[in-house]
Amino acid sequence: MIVRDENQLKGTDRAVSDADWTSVRMLLADDNMGFSFHITYLKAGSEHTFHYKNHFESVYCMSGKGSITDLATGETHEIKPGVMYALDQHDKHTLRAEEELVMACCFNPPVTGKEVHREDGSYAAPDEAA
Amino acid sequence: MIVRDENQLKGTDRAVSDADWTSVRMLLADDNMGFSFHITYLKAGSEHTFHYKNHFESVYCMSGKGSITDLATGETHEIKPGVMYALDQHDKHTLRAEEELVMACCFNPPVTGKEVHREDGSYAAPDEAA
Repeated sequence: MIVRDENQLKGTDRAVSDADWTSVRMLLADDNMGFSFHITYLKAGSEHTFHYKNHFESVYCMSGKGSITDLATGETHEIKPGVMYALDQHDKHTLRAEEELVMACCFNPPVTGKEVHREDGSYAAPDEAA
Repeated sequence: MIVRDENQLKGTDRAVSDADWTSVRMLLADDNMGFSFHITYLKAGSEHTFHYKNHFESVYCMSGKGSITDLATGETHEIKPGVMYALDQHDKHTLRAEEELVMACCFNPPVTGKEVHREDGSYAAPDEAA
């Protein structure tokens, strides 16, 4: 059994940040769960375009307010506590945080922790990132 | 892209309950994400012994207070917001809710939605439950 406290991971190399977001990696590929699990904080006023070509991701809103636009269809959905989106088609999307968003995210295949967002908004596939 | 609002799933067949818990199935096997994702509410004062012999599960505490005991080692860990446990060894465990616990849970393989907890605390494997 693995037990981890998010509050103890902040400030370690399991908390990855750029100017507009922080992601605390609670589970990564080497935990051998078959998925990874992250708590991600998106700064109020920020906007993010991602395209996980090599991963499925689900994102559940724990707190905050924003929206997501599916860039294939142009549809926009409200993000608020209790709303989840799942990128089952590797959907390219833009996420906007009107207020700080706190999101619980699962990735399959699991993120290794070594990925960076590439220019096209994707993460490398696990074999490229290893 | 799948978008679901937990508040709209309550009261539907995606919200499964017994006397002491309710689990809202945000993603199930037929969503083809390779994992399932559930928001689970455990009643204050309740105690649960589970043994997912056929699944890996991670559980992140969003609110509430309680504890988990690893029945193989006897170790007990505090559960509070920000704490996650991951049953990477299919660990048999007892979970206690001192206050109502609200937990974000991921299962691999994904739960089909047809499983029931069996006498031994497990869920059937996907091929048995299908």
